[in-house]
Amino acid sequence: MTAVNDDAAVLEANRALYAAFEALDMAAMDAVWEHSDRAVVTHPGHPTLLGWEAVRESWARIMAHTPYIQFFLTEEKVTVVGDVAWVTLYENILQEVARPGASALGDSRVAATNVFVRDADGRWAMVVHHGSPVAA
Amino acid sequence: MTAVNDDAAVLEANRALYAAFEALDMAAMDAVWEHSDRAVVTHPGHPTLLGWEAVRESWARIMAHTPYIQFFLTEEKVTVVGDVAWVTLYENILQEVARPGASALGDSRVAATNVFVRDADGRWAMVVHHGSPVAA
Repeated sequence: MTAVNDDAAVLEANRALYAAFEALDMAAMDAVWEHSDRAVVTHPGHPTLLGWEAVRESWARIMAHTPYIQFFLTEEKVTVVGDVAWVTLYENILQEVARPGASALGDSRVAATNVFVRDADGRWAMVVHHGSPVAA
Repeated sequence: MTAVNDDAAVLEANRALYAAFEALDMAAMDAVWEHSDRAVVTHPGHPTLLGWEAVRESWARIMAHTPYIQFFLTEEKVTVVGDVAWVTLYENILQEVARPGASALGDSRVAATNVFVRDADGRWAMVVHHGSPVAA
């Protein structure tokens, strides 16, 4: 497998996170992640959650409270070293946000660092997702 | 080298980042990082800076504007996969902050993800630092 193909496979794994979130599809989200103690997530402005159980619970809760979300990913930068890869990118987010007595679309930007480990089957599984708010 | 020793070496490399920052010692900061295009930093609330030159410039600028800072590191969690390692932790920060007409000590908490790559000499060099504010 060439380095170019590695990058493409990592980018595909990375985009699968956002596709699962946009579709509010928990089974797809399950498939993105490594189900292990080293799985960790830091949602924007929140403490870090350690281990797959806590990571999964956070996504289930977020999805339950997200009627609509869409991601425009920019500046995706992939690095692969052996069986580890990481991607830095911006999540440009369009989502429905609560307003007093109504709802509206809001936009925001999150800086994300995503780490993946290649498993024995050659599949890139997410082990770290760290998102942080970027001031406008 | 055992896995336990790997973890210890990564923790030492991780702590060196904060020691360099506390000492406002740019030469020590230089020694922490890999000087490459894949070096990236996301400071809390800020966009991601790509490449060693931009990373270094950000640290020099931050140090120039930081009269005093002290870190209490908690929940350091180390994972090593081959020649890559990452650490998630909290930076509990005590620092001098500007107030109108005076200065004072402020405290804050940052969730950090730090990624390291082991070089040919067995040294762990930082390639990613991502810090994000944690709401109080």
